[in-house]
Amino acid sequence: MKKVAVVMGSDSDLPVLATAIKQLKAFDIPFEARVISAHRTPYEAERFSRTAIENGFGVIIAAAGKAAHLAGVMAAYTTLPVIGLPIKSSTMDGLDSLLSTVQMPSGIPVATVAIGGADNAAILAAQILAVNDGALAQKLAAFKEKMAAAYIEKDKKLQSEVNNI
Amino acid sequence: MKKVAVVMGSDSDLPVLATAIKQLKAFDIPFEARVISAHRTPYEAERFSRTAIENGFGVIIAAAGKAAHLAGVMAAYTTLPVIGLPIKSSTMDGLDSLLSTVQMPSGIPVATVAIGGADNAAILAAQILAVNDGALAQKLAAFKEKMAAAYIEKDKKLQSEVNNI
Amino acid sequence: MKKVAVVMGSDSDLPVLATAIKQLKAFDIPFEARVISAHRTPYEAERFSRTAIENGFGVIIAAAGKAAHLAGVMAAYTTLPVIGLPIKSSTMDGLDSLLSTVQMPSGIPVATVAIGGADNAAILAAQILAVNDGALAQKLAAFKEKMAAAYIEKDKKLQSEVNNI
Amino acid sequence: MKKVAVVMGSDSDLPVLATAIKQLKAFDIPFEARVISAHRTPYEAERFSRTAIENGFGVIIAAAGKAAHLAGVMAAYTTLPVIGLPIKSSTMDGLDSLLSTVQMPSGIPVATVAIGGADNAAILAAQILAVNDGALAQKLAAFKEKMAAAYIEKDKKLQSEVNNI
Amino acid sequence: MKKVAVVMGSDSDLPVLATAIKQLKAFDIPFEARVISAHRTPYEAERFSRTAIENGFGVIIAAAGKAAHLAGVMAAYTTLPVIGLPIKSSTMDGLDSLLSTVQMPSGIPVATVAIGGADNAAILAAQILAVNDGALAQKLAAFKEKMAAAYIEKDKKLQSEVNNI
Amino acid sequence: MKKVAVVMGSDSDLPVLATAIKQLKAFDIPFEARVISAHRTPYEAERFSRTAIENGFGVIIAAAGKAAHLAGVMAAYTTLPVIGLPIKSSTMDGLDSLLSTVQMPSGIPVATVAIGGADNAAILAAQILAVNDGALAQKLAAFKEKMAAAYIEKDKKLQSEVNNI
Amino acid sequence: MKKVAVVMGSDSDLPVLATAIKQLKAFDIPFEARVISAHRTPYEAERFSRTAIENGFGVIIAAAGKAAHLAGVMAAYTTLPVIGLPIKSSTMDGLDSLLSTVQMPSGIPVATVAIGGADNAAILAAQILAVNDGALAQKLAAFKEKMAAAYIEKDKKLQSEVNNI
Amino acid sequence: MKKVAVVMGSDSDLPVLATAIKQLKAFDIPFEARVISAHRTPYEAERFSRTAIENGFGVIIAAAGKAAHLAGVMAAYTTLPVIGLPIKSSTMDGLDSLLSTVQMPSGIPVATVAIGGADNAAILAAQILAVNDGALAQKLAAFKEKMAAAYIEKDKKLQSEVNNI
Repeated sequence: MKKVAVVMGSDSDLPVLATAIKQLKAFDIPFEARVISAHRTPYEAERFSRTAIENGFGVIIAAAGKAAHLAGVMAAYTTLPVIGLPIKSSTMDGLDSLLSTVQMPSGIPVATVAIGGADNAAILAAQILAVNDGALAQKLAAFKEKMAAAYIEKDKKLQSEVNNI
Repeated sequence: MKKVAVVMGSDSDLPVLATAIKQLKAFDIPFEARVISAHRTPYEAERFSRTAIENGFGVIIAAAGKAAHLAGVMAAYTTLPVIGLPIKSSTMDGLDSLLSTVQMPSGIPVATVAIGGADNAAILAAQILAVNDGALAQKLAAFKEKMAAAYIEKDKKLQSEVNNI
Repeated sequence: MKKVAVVMGSDSDLPVLATAIKQLKAFDIPFEARVISAHRTPYEAERFSRTAIENGFGVIIAAAGKAAHLAGVMAAYTTLPVIGLPIKSSTMDGLDSLLSTVQMPSGIPVATVAIGGADNAAILAAQILAVNDGALAQKLAAFKEKMAAAYIEKDKKLQSEVNNI
Repeated sequence: MKKVAVVMGSDSDLPVLATAIKQLKAFDIPFEARVISAHRTPYEAERFSRTAIENGFGVIIAAAGKAAHLAGVMAAYTTLPVIGLPIKSSTMDGLDSLLSTVQMPSGIPVATVAIGGADNAAILAAQILAVNDGALAQKLAAFKEKMAAAYIEKDKKLQSEVNNI
Repeated sequence: MKKVAVVMGSDSDLPVLATAIKQLKAFDIPFEARVISAHRTPYEAERFSRTAIENGFGVIIAAAGKAAHLAGVMAAYTTLPVIGLPIKSSTMDGLDSLLSTVQMPSGIPVATVAIGGADNAAILAAQILAVNDGALAQKLAAFKEKMAAAYIEKDKKLQSEVNNI
Repeated sequence: MKKVAVVMGSDSDLPVLATAIKQLKAFDIPFEARVISAHRTPYEAERFSRTAIENGFGVIIAAAGKAAHLAGVMAAYTTLPVIGLPIKSSTMDGLDSLLSTVQMPSGIPVATVAIGGADNAAILAAQILAVNDGALAQKLAAFKEKMAAAYIEKDKKLQSEVNNI
Repeated sequence: MKKVAVVMGSDSDLPVLATAIKQLKAFDIPFEARVISAHRTPYEAERFSRTAIENGFGVIIAAAGKAAHLAGVMAAYTTLPVIGLPIKSSTMDGLDSLLSTVQMPSGIPVATVAIGGADNAAILAAQILAVNDGALAQKLAAFKEKMAAAYIEKDKKLQSEVNNI
Repeated sequence: MKKVAVVMGSDSDLPVLATAIKQLKAFDIPFEARVISAHRTPYEAERFSRTAIENGFGVIIAAAGKAAHLAGVMAAYTTLPVIGLPIKSSTMDGLDSLLSTVQMPSGIPVATVAIGGADNAAILAAQILAVNDGALAQKLAAFKEKMAAAYIEKDKKLQSEVNNI
C-alpha cells in the first residue's frame, strides 16, 4: 500500500496531529510523520514534495496555522492529492489558517478539512487510498458502522440522563 | 476507470460547474453530472450516495451554496472521498457555503476546495483517481508542466506591457 | 398536546440542551429527547423526521455545531416547523454553526434561534404549539409577566449596588 | 384560519417581501402587510404587536435590515411566534441584519430565516399554522412533492446541457 | 446640570458599567442607573425614554449585548442623544452587539462607543454636557492632561524595564 | 449657536457627506465643511481640532474610510464630542472603517454612527447641541414626528401595492 | 541604487500593479516586473528569491490574491525585506489575501500593505531604500509635501461645492 | 548604524514587545523603546515621529491595539518606514487592530506584520537596515540558517515521539 505523509509546520502541532496518526495506525496504513516548514525549511518542503511519488507516498497531509502555506507549497511540487489541515493559532480563531489553506488558485487544489480536524484528515487519506483497495474500503465501512453503533448507544443512554434534568 | 460524480445542488450552479466538466473531459475521466438537492430531493441524495460505489463511482464532487449541506449529506452515506465545492450566493460572499462545507464533524470528512473553485474540484478528483493510475498521473504531470509553461509565456509578455505603463 | 422533539447531534450537547428540557417541563409540554447525527446516523435522522408527524410530534428542535446540518436534514424530510439551535464549537465562535443552520435555500426553512439559545428554542416551540392552544398561550403570557417582574426586582436591587461603587 | 402579519421596516423592502406574499396567497393563508418601523413608528410597532392575538393573527413575519430591531421589538410585546427576516443592506452583506435578528437574549426568541429568504419566511409561517390544520399540512406536503418533482425535471434537463459543454 | 441615564439591559452588565459610574462620579455629574430590558420590560423602556427630557436627563447611556436593541429602542422614543455601549457576550466576541447597536437606520442615530468601553461612554456623556458647560469642559481638559501626564510617567518607567529584558 | 465641523478625509467623500450637510441646513445649524486628512495633512488636523473650541465649534463630525483614523485623531486634540462616520471603501465592505473608528481606547471616545450614515451624523450633532437649546430640541421633535407621519403614509400606500402582487 | 522587484502572482494583477510601477518610475527607482506564481512556477519563485540579493535587488514587492502565498514563499528564500500586497479576488472581499499574506509565522516577516494598495507598496519600497539614500529621502519628503498641498487645494475647492448642496 | 524606535501605545504591551527587544539586542541593533499614545500623548507622537530622522532613527516599530492609530499617525509625520504591529485586545481577536493598522490610505504606507508578531517586527526592521549593511545581512542569513537547523532537529526528535502515540 502507498504511504501517507503527515507533515506538520511545527512540532507544537503534534498534539493535534496525534489523532490523525492514531487513526492511520488503526487502519494499518503506513505513514511517515515529518516536521517541515514552508518558511523555515523551504528546501526540504520542496524536496519532500517533489520526490513524494517516487518515495512511495500516495497522499500528503499538511498541517499548518496562521498564514498556512504548507499545504499549498506541497501541492505546487507534486500531483499527489494534498490534504490541508488548518491549525487554530492564538488569534483569528483559525479563520486565517482556513482561508490560507482552502482558497487555492486555479490549477493547484488542496483538499481542506475542518479547522483542527486531524482525525478527518486521516480518514480522508484512507478514503483516497481505498478507491482502489477493497480491503481498506471494507475497514472504512466497518469504521462507519461502528461509529453509528456508538451513536445509537449514546442515544439510549440519553434517556435516563434526561429524566434527571 | 472509476467514474466521477458531479452533483450540484441547483441547476443554476451549472455555469460554475462547467469548468469542472471541461477539465474532466480534458483528462478523459468518465463522469456523470446530476442535479440533486440535499433538501429538495433528499431521498435521491441518499440513494445516489449509498449506491455510488456499486455504480462504479470513485469520487463524488458535491457543489452547493448558502447552508451547503450537499457534500456532508453525500459523505454521510458513502465511504468514497467526497469533494465539497462551496458556491458563492447573493449574500455572505461565500463564507456561509465554505463553513457549511468544510467544518464537518469528526468521522465524516469533506475534501473542500476554494469557493467557486470548480476546476480545482475536477483536478483534485483526477489526483485521487491517479493515485493508482500511472497514465492519469502522467496526464496530471503534463497538465502541471503546461500550466507552468503558460505562466513563463505570460511573464515574457509582461515585459513589453510594463514598458507602456 | 403534540410532542416536541429535542434532537441533538451529539450527547456532548446535553449540558446546553438541559435548559431547553427544563423549560419544556416547566410548560408541561410533552417531549422526547434524542441523540441523532445527520452524519453518523443519517438513516435514523431520515426515519425520525419522516415519521415525526405520524408519531405525534408538532415541532422539532435540532441542535448541532460546526457544519451544523442536522436541522436542515430534519427539515428536508418533514413539513413540521424545525427549530435550529446552533451550538458553539471550539473554533469560529459559533459563526459556522449559525450560518450552516440559518442560510437554508428556498423552500426548506429552518427557524433559527441564537447561538447556544437553548431556552429560546424551547420557548419558541411553546409559542408555536400555543397558536391553537389557549391554555399554553396563557402559560406563555404568565412566563412573560414573571420575567418582567424579575427584571423590575433586579432594577430595584441595582440602586443599592450602585451606591457602593 | 389565523392570519399572518407581514411587517416590513421600510416600504423599500417590498420587492423582497413580494415572494413571501405570493407564497401566502398560494397557500390561501389570510394575511395583512404593513410598513411599521421599530424606530420611526415605535408606538405603532408596540400597538400592533400587543394586539396581534386579539386581532386574529397567528404568526408575525418581521423583515428589517441593518441594526434590524423590528422582529425583536415585535417579540417583546407578544407571545405569538415571530419570524425574523434579515434584509441585506448596502454594507456588511446582511451580517448586521442577521446578527441583530437572531442573537436574541434569553426569554424572547425570534425564529430567524436566511438573509433575504422571504419565501422561507412564508413557508415557515404556513408550517406553524399547519401544526393544527390538517388541510394546510397537506398543502405543504403537496408543495414539497412539487418542488421535488421540479428538481427531478431539472436533473433530466441537465443531461443534454452537459453534453454541450 | 442635566442628569445622565445609565441604562443596562441586564444586571449582569453592572461590573462593566461600574467604570462608567465611577467616571461620572469623578466628574460630579448627576446620574441614575437602571436595569431596563428592551425585550423583557419594553413598556418601562418606552416610558423611561419618552419621559427622559421632562425628567431632567440630558444624555442616555444604553448598554446591551447580543442582539443589542436597547440603545435603538431608547433612541426611538426620545430626541436626546443616546450613547450605545455594546457588551461582549459568550459568542461572536461582541461583533453582534456592535453591529446591532451602531448600524441604525436613517433618522435615528445611536452614538456608539467601543465594545465594553464603559468609561468612554461616560466621558462622551460628559463631553456632550460640556458643550454648554464651561466648568465641566475644564474638568475634561484637566482629565485629558492628567491622562497625558500618566502616560509620560509610564514612558519614563519603561526605560528601566527595557534594560531588564 | 455653536457650529458643527464637518470634516472629511477625502473630497471623494463629499457625495456621502452631502446628506449630512443638507440635514444641518434643514435644522439651521451653522457649520463649516473641510477636507482634512489625518495622514496627508496631519498638522492641519491637529491645528483644527486643538482650536475648535475657541473657534466656536460645539461638535465635530469626522468621516473617513479604510484605516479611518480621522475621528480618533480629532478626538485626541479636543474635549469636544467627536462623531465618527465610517465610510465604506472598495474592500472589506466598511468593516475596516467601522472598527478603526469605534474601537477607541479608554479615555478618548468617538461617537460612532452607522457605516455611511451621514444623515445620522448630522442628526446626532443636532441632538447634542439641542441638550441646552430648547428651540433646536423642538425642531428635532418635529423632525421625528414628520418622519413618523411619512411612514404612516407609506404604510397606507402599501395596501394597494400588495393587492397587485 | 538597488532595484525593486515587482512580482505578481498572475498577469491579471497588472492593472492593480500599474500604479506601483508608475510610482517607482516617478521616484526614478530601478525595478524589474515579473509574473511568478508560488504555485504554478514554484521553481522560478525559489530561484528568483534565492538570487535576488546577488542580482542587485534591495526590496521585493509580491502581489497575490486568494490563498496568497507568494510573499511568504519569497520571504522564505531571502533575507531581503519582502512587501506583501494582498489582491482582492472575486470572493471574500480580500480578507483571504490579507490574512494569507500578513499572518506569517515567527521568523519570516512579510511587510504587508492595504488590500489593493499598490501605490503604497511602491512608496514603502522607496522608504526602505531611502534609509541610506539622502537623495531619495528628499524625493519622499517632496512627495509628502506635494500630497499635502494637493489636499489643501481640495479643501479650498470644497467650500464652493458645499454652497451648491 | 541607524537606530530602531520601538514605540508602544500602552505600557501593558511590553510583554508582547519584549520579544522584539530581545531580537534587536541579539542582532546588536541600537534601539529606543517608548510608551507613546496616538490618543493620550498626541503631541509627543507628532514630535517623536517628525524628528525621528534627525535623531538618528532608521525604522519605527509602532505597536497598538483596538482602533490602532499609532503606526498610521507615526507614518503621517515621517518618511521613514513604519512597521505596524497589531496587538490583540480583549474583543474582536485582533481583527480591529489589524485592519486599523494595515488598511492605510494611498500615500502613507504602514508595513504591517502579523497580530502579536513582535519578533517579526524586529526581524523586518533588521532586514530594512540590512539593505545597505552587509554585516547585518550576514547576521540575518545566519539567523535563517540557525532557524532551519533547529527545525531539522525538531524533525528528527519527532520520529521517536510519533512511535509513542
